[in-house]
Amino acid sequence: MSLKTYLPILDWGRRYDRQTLTSDLVAAVIVTIMLIPQSLAYALLAGLPPEVGLYASVLPLIAYAVFGTSTALAVGPVAVVSLMTAAAVGRVAATGTADYASAAIMLALLSGVMLALMGLFRLGFVANFLSHPVISGFITASGIIIATSQIGGLLGISTQGHAMPHLVMSIVENIGGINPWTLAVGAVALALLLWIRIDLKNWLKRFGVPKGPANIIVRAGPVLVVFLTMAASALLDLGGKGVALVGQVPQGLPMLSLPSFNLDTIQALALPALIISIVGFVESISVAQTLAAKRRERIDPNQELIGLGASNIAAAVGGGYPVTGGFARSVVNFDAGAATPAAGAFTAIGIAGATLLLTPFLAILPKATLAATIVIAVLTLVDFGILKRAWDYSKADFAAVAITLAGTLLLGVEVGISLGVGASILVFLYRSSQPHAAIVGLVPGTEHYRNVKRHKVETVPGVLSIRIDESLYFANARYLEDLVYNHVAANPAVKDVVLMCSAVNAIDMSALESLEAIQHRLTDLGVRLHLSEVKGPVMDRLEGTEFLAGLAGRVYLSQHQAMQTIVSGRVSTPSLVEAEGRAPAGLE
Amino acid sequence: MSLKTYLPILDWGRRYDRQTLTSDLVAAVIVTIMLIPQSLAYALLAGLPPEVGLYASVLPLIAYAVFGTSTALAVGPVAVVSLMTAAAVGRVAATGTADYASAAIMLALLSGVMLALMGLFRLGFVANFLSHPVISGFITASGIIIATSQIGGLLGISTQGHAMPHLVMSIVENIGGINPWTLAVGAVALALLLWIRIDLKNWLKRFGVPKGPANIIVRAGPVLVVFLTMAASALLDLGGKGVALVGQVPQGLPMLSLPSFNLDTIQALALPALIISIVGFVESISVAQTLAAKRRERIDPNQELIGLGASNIAAAVGGGYPVTGGFARSVVNFDAGAATPAAGAFTAIGIAGATLLLTPFLAILPKATLAATIVIAVLTLVDFGILKRAWDYSKADFAAVAITLAGTLLLGVEVGISLGVGASILVFLYRSSQPHAAIVGLVPGTEHYRNVKRHKVETVPGVLSIRIDESLYFANARYLEDLVYNHVAANPAVKDVVLMCSAVNAIDMSALESLEAIQHRLTDLGVRLHLSEVKGPVMDRLEGTEFLAGLAGRVYLSQHQAMQTIVSGRVSTPSLVEAEGRAPAGLE
Repeated sequence: MSLKTYLPILDWGRRYDRQTLTSDLVAAVIVTIMLIPQSLAYALLAGLPPEVGLYASVLPLIAYAVFGTSTALAVGPVAVVSLMTAAAVGRVAATGTADYASAAIMLALLSGVMLALMGLFRLGFVANFLSHPVISGFITASGIIIATSQIGGLLGISTQGHAMPHLVMSIVENIGGINPWTLAVGAVALALLLWIRIDLKNWLKRFGVPKGPANIIVRAGPVLVVFLTMAASALLDLGGKGVALVGQVPQGLPMLSLPSFNLDTIQALALPALIISIVGFVESISVAQTLAAKRRERIDPNQELIGLGASNIAAAVGGGYPVTGGFARSVVNFDAGAATPAAGAFTAIGIAGATLLLTPFLAILPKATLAATIVIAVLTLVDFGILKRAWDYSKADFAAVAITLAGTLLLGVEVGISLGVGASILVFLYRSSQPHAAIVGLVPGTEHYRNVKRHKVETVPGVLSIRIDESLYFANARYLEDLVYNHVAANPAVKDVVLMCSAVNAIDMSALESLEAIQHRLTDLGVRLHLSEVKGPVMDRLEGTEFLAGLAGRVYLSQHQAMQTIVSGRVSTPSLVEAEGRAPAGLE
Repeated sequence: MSLKTYLPILDWGRRYDRQTLTSDLVAAVIVTIMLIPQSLAYALLAGLPPEVGLYASVLPLIAYAVFGTSTALAVGPVAVVSLMTAAAVGRVAATGTADYASAAIMLALLSGVMLALMGLFRLGFVANFLSHPVISGFITASGIIIATSQIGGLLGISTQGHAMPHLVMSIVENIGGINPWTLAVGAVALALLLWIRIDLKNWLKRFGVPKGPANIIVRAGPVLVVFLTMAASALLDLGGKGVALVGQVPQGLPMLSLPSFNLDTIQALALPALIISIVGFVESISVAQTLAAKRRERIDPNQELIGLGASNIAAAVGGGYPVTGGFARSVVNFDAGAATPAAGAFTAIGIAGATLLLTPFLAILPKATLAATIVIAVLTLVDFGILKRAWDYSKADFAAVAITLAGTLLLGVEVGISLGVGASILVFLYRSSQPHAAIVGLVPGTEHYRNVKRHKVETVPGVLSIRIDESLYFANARYLEDLVYNHVAANPAVKDVVLMCSAVNAIDMSALESLEAIQHRLTDLGVRLHLSEVKGPVMDRLEGTEFLAGLAGRVYLSQHQAMQTIVSGRVSTPSLVEAEGRAPAGLE
């Protein structure tokens, strides 16, 4: 572990030249243009003043440039983490209060410290327990909740709640208070953003605009909509007609500071901070790894934890809220040619400049424009196809998706994702507690043994070869006892049992007890127990145990060796006979 | 599922004859004599009046005789469940109150209903999650707590608490109040019981008493000590000297009744009832299976759940408290020749008779005698050897024992066992998230492939064969990606990668995504991915996936076939070379 491991900037910084600078600057300009409306909108989604989104897009990007390992990852406020922030902070403070803003800062600090500690202690593997189905179900549900939560902003009514039942109820209750001007602004903004996303590129192409500038214009589209609706707001005095505007915003960047420490708040935010950290990390690392693979680069997950941790601590110090790597903007950054994490630092400078220039004009920006921006951005998150794909592949994975999706929609983000993780672990444990097992025979012409029910194989009368397809541990130890005992009891002719252990990756103490019990019972019945294909690490553990010392049979390197030795050791060598393709009940 | 499955009595009842009757009657007499002092003592341990122990030894035994499958299991109050009852009921009511007794009855009812439901829904596998190390640590800790809790009874001082810190503190606080007469009774009873257990048999042998009657006398020893101390109590007026006596006890058996339903109590007792049910079931089924195996009988775990459930419901109806199969008394029952569950029903009749006859005399029985009975009985539970055995076998199993032992001693029975179960599941998940993997080569002269680091094997340049020793699922999916990618990146000469899947028992959706990612990356690098020895159930699932459709290589039945085909398919066939016995870093 050299300093270079913890400060990747020392590595790529040495090789920085004019060409990388140009690439990074171009990428930074495009990402800055894209990030401005998103930052404002996501802050609003998090229940915070819009300028907080800009604050969260400055220091965190610089921190990531110093500590991060991805050349393409664009860090900042993202939709799902903003929703999770709203849900967590909403429990300790009321929206719009100073307590709310400082709780959001505390959430960023806690999340940053947790991420950094996980990185330092190399605990990145914890994120692996968020399975793909759980993440997919969660992201889809979050997208639906976020889109629904913006209906209020588009219609000019107030809504509450961070899960569907509460949200839908509050929309229904307040539906009478629709403001037609807000509805008009929202509808126009939505239509324009949709048109920009779907059709603008083709349209520009038809007018002969080259691909490069066309791409930049499309990315800048949302900023144009922001300017357009600001102009409309000023010309038509939309504020006077009841359209909610962003209102006065402090100019410039906030002073660096730390949140006030309040033990109750910290306690209430600790668990949400952990969940936000892990979800943010998983999202971020997936994007980073996908993009890195395209360029044959490597991402160090534990250093990424440190990078994201530093970003969130920086977010807290700079008056922001939790951030992570965003999918869409990282892809844009990558496509635009970002060559090093410095592109992020340049983006930060761009956002800082925009913050100084833009804030005076933000007062007249209709909030409906930001709501429309969010709706368009999160539509890509919703993917109901995962339900069908999971159903087709495995019912267990489908259950994990469905539980996470329904749990998140109905009970909220934290409960939903926790239910999903719990369900996927339970399913895994349940499956491994009832392992698949097969009676095996020799594939003719080879030394390979396979399931008698699936392959045309040869078996030897009086020798029962069972391949058990799972590590032997407490949850299936008793199952194993029953399995062997039932087979031997059903075949009185059996004199030798070979346990083929090619799929047994571990034997814990409970399973060792069960093996001893099996050994005793088989000895009582006059049957010898043998093992074959025991792996090195498993054999190391069995050495010196009473079980191995008391084994009536032997341990063979391969199943074929076991069969040859057992057969040749008999007085009358039975000939190989073809299996009937059937196994006793209970085995597949 | 016939009626016979749910009512095993219909099966053995048909074959019942004079000889089984004699065997059962003899066993019942011996078990009755043994059960009387234990029932009284364990009820006291549970914080209940001693006669409740007798009530719990009547109806539950009859219910088990109807629904149970073990011919030897003797059901009734046991030490560990009594301690757990005291801990659970002590939280909702004060000892000695009517609420306390009715909460204990409710606990039995809840536990009975839970057990019966688990049996009906065939959920017996849940018990498998109590691993052997957890059970061992828990029983040892319970034995220590129970023995310590009886110190008060032996010294004539009052103590509180169901975990060591509280218990020891209360002993220290009250140590000044020792009653010398109680101490004398306690010491004499302890000494007598120890002598009976250790030496009486040899002593009787020396006097020429045949083995059969000698055994019965030894079993009856504790009853003799009860009578002796009752006589001493009457002659010396021990009650007047401050020795705690059992006191007036209602004569006869209680009316059949159900506890009053109180939702708060039910809520508070639900989780303890579940833990008691599972612990009781695991203890009971272990004894039943051990004894059944000696007679080549079968135990049906799910029907055992129904049997124990019926017993506990009967305990509730008959004014008792939670019961389960006891180890020592089942062994006695077995040794004495019990041939059918009817032996239990005869024991119940014996206890009912004793209850009617004994209760008038119990008033003068010193409680210290019962405390001594408990101490002697639970000494056999304490087994510190498990710590050493677990340490020698595996540090993970040792951790499970140590956490359960320390947790139970310090934090109580429920927290202790929950910590143990949680720890053993976490260790299992952690291990399977970082699986063992090996680069494999051909064992010369065979078709068998083993780890290049452990065996002298042959490999082919340009072909990397990796055996991954774990099912592929969400927790290790990303690990797999890194593993393959790192190996290929470290060996630029590699043109073919064979994933040997003999130990892969399942591939979930997350792992499928990772396989697709590996596939894409290898294709980018110009490397073909092959699979070998994929098991039937895994292959079934992979059929029709994009991964299989996009595979650059092939799926081979055996690793040997894969190597032969890949080598022969090349323009210039490389010769087999001997592996240097080293693998790239990260593999063992």
